[in-house]
Amino acid sequence: MKVYADRLARAADAARAANVDALLITPGPDLRYLVGSAADSFERLTVLIIPADGSTPTVVLPTLELASLNGSAVGELGLRVVDWVDGVDPYDLVRDALPADARVAVTDTMPALHLLPLAARFGSLPVSATPVLRTLRMTKDDAELDALRRAGAAIDRVHARMGEFLRPGRTEAEVGADITAAIIEEGHTEAAFVIVGSGPHGADPHHLVSDRVIEAGDVVVIDIGGPVEPGYYSDSTRTYVLGEPSAEVASRLAVLEAAQAAAVAAVRPGVTAESIDAAARDVLVEAGFGDAFVHRTGHGIGLSVHEEPYIVAGNDLVLEPGMAFSIEPGIYFRGEWGARIEDIVVVTDDGVESMNKRPHGLTQL
Amino acid sequence: MKVYADRLARAADAARAANVDALLITPGPDLRYLVGSAADSFERLTVLIIPADGSTPTVVLPTLELASLNGSAVGELGLRVVDWVDGVDPYDLVRDALPADARVAVTDTMPALHLLPLAARFGSLPVSATPVLRTLRMTKDDAELDALRRAGAAIDRVHARMGEFLRPGRTEAEVGADITAAIIEEGHTEAAFVIVGSGPHGADPHHLVSDRVIEAGDVVVIDIGGPVEPGYYSDSTRTYVLGEPSAEVASRLAVLEAAQAAAVAAVRPGVTAESIDAAARDVLVEAGFGDAFVHRTGHGIGLSVHEEPYIVAGNDLVLEPGMAFSIEPGIYFRGEWGARIEDIVVVTDDGVESMNKRPHGLTQL
Repeated sequence: MKVYADRLARAADAARAANVDALLITPGPDLRYLVGSAADSFERLTVLIIPADGSTPTVVLPTLELASLNGSAVGELGLRVVDWVDGVDPYDLVRDALPADARVAVTDTMPALHLLPLAARFGSLPVSATPVLRTLRMTKDDAELDALRRAGAAIDRVHARMGEFLRPGRTEAEVGADITAAIIEEGHTEAAFVIVGSGPHGADPHHLVSDRVIEAGDVVVIDIGGPVEPGYYSDSTRTYVLGEPSAEVASRLAVLEAAQAAAVAAVRPGVTAESIDAAARDVLVEAGFGDAFVHRTGHGIGLSVHEEPYIVAGNDLVLEPGMAFSIEPGIYFRGEWGARIEDIVVVTDDGVESMNKRPHGLTQL
Repeated sequence: MKVYADRLARAADAARAANVDALLITPGPDLRYLVGSAADSFERLTVLIIPADGSTPTVVLPTLELASLNGSAVGELGLRVVDWVDGVDPYDLVRDALPADARVAVTDTMPALHLLPLAARFGSLPVSATPVLRTLRMTKDDAELDALRRAGAAIDRVHARMGEFLRPGRTEAEVGADITAAIIEEGHTEAAFVIVGSGPHGADPHHLVSDRVIEAGDVVVIDIGGPVEPGYYSDSTRTYVLGEPSAEVASRLAVLEAAQAAAVAAVRPGVTAESIDAAARDVLVEAGFGDAFVHRTGHGIGLSVHEEPYIVAGNDLVLEPGMAFSIEPGIYFRGEWGARIEDIVVVTDDGVESMNKRPHGLTQL
């Protein structure tokens, strides 16, 4: 429980430093981070109220959901619990727990359904809690790094089995269903996303799966991941070819592999997020593939699949030990094929650790 | 496509009537209702802008997500599409598509991540789009009713197979895994929720599954559902007993069955939502179980599992043909056992149609 007590205290400190009176955290990754609760968000309000003055936080939740606190740290932490039954206005309960003119910050995932009535109770537009919690959530502690390592090893085991699933004559959806099962077999609690981008579909970075039948010779982008307990995500992409690659495909993949490796090698404390994006992008631009790399180089990862820090041009955030993010440059040739290589990496005291250990180059199946 | 063009036109009319200048709809059930898009919500903004003046709606979305419009009605409807790449501020694009002082209404599921920067661009707190879209979404058309019927029949087939799964000596989690597979086998695209509340766990209405081993004689609440194409949900609860029920269990279940039947029988156009809640509650109060019925009688259902109309005390909404909702009274005896019976029903021109046809009483396995 000490880890959660410590996080709550640091969150209150950060709120005070940000000139905010309280944080309002509905279910989602911030709630899981702060008190270990994996509660779902429903139309009935559940919210953790963290006063910036360091006084005891309050959890407001439906009486029906009291049991959802089991397994979280709320009981042991001695938080105040205010439960409500259908017919009570829960937003009034939040207002009553704080000064009338409180400046509140809300978690990014809070839906308008709850945000709008809360804003009405406090008479002003809340601010985002993300800048307040950024420093806490971006820098992973040892237990979080351990979870990310386990997640990385689990998704590596799925990639290692790709030859079982990915064969000519099968549809992307069939391959995807097998991968989904393997993601769970290898230790994830669910398959959060499964991209099987074969042939021309590989040129769409956010393609999922389709009924396209995979053919001999296809280049196939496989981008997969999911959470392992207690909620930390894997996310890894490799590019496969079914048979012998053409000389053009092989040479372009070698450039992409070099770009990804250059970005990984650039990671260390003290450099900016955008410099990592530039490290990958420069290699691709130099080789004439700048226009083919249509997205940022990466995103932070932890209790959310996508979180800060974003590895993108314009982000001058300075990297610090414990920050975890993807490095995933890609090249996309519309109507033809695409490729992407993605590892999750963590900034160490003097460099970088990769959570994914599978070979990076084009894998021939 | 005509259905979506019609819905967009009616949404604009409703916005005008509500004195709102535009609706801003991020991915979720409202977006699926209005243009047929099942897009997911990400940290990158995707939003449908519906001007109240009836001019052409705009979709703002990441270039990466352009392919997600396939399968939706956006292409055929001739909507304006504005795509953006990493580095561009998408909230400015929304502001530029509307007058500077536009009063905007936002979908209930819009996360704070997008709502707060949009509110900042328009200089005022948005209002909820739900009152604007309420009339449209609450009253199901023939295609929607057909989907709800298919969903009801699919979940009935799962309940009909309960004897395959629910046996003494198995854990709730094992039974739940089999039910999850059956929900998909019987035609759902996913299992959205699976509650296996055995013995004392049945007394917690929102219990999911656990490692508790189910015993002979247990009363077990099974509350299950998921979506069928194009996104409409099933949701049905039955209570089972493993072996011979005690006289007390049998008699209390008979009261619950009567309460559920009374509420169903009370459904017709022209009566209020709260009168349906009262119809179930009165039976239970009369029999001395008022305190054991700790939640509202039901919730609307459609593209969301829980939506309007809520069947709860204080809701004086008058029911109209096409409204769909659950009727699910329950009785809960803390530390001992619980029971619930749930059907999805639809208001017809002169009464009620139930989407679930399985026997309502205690089912002995």
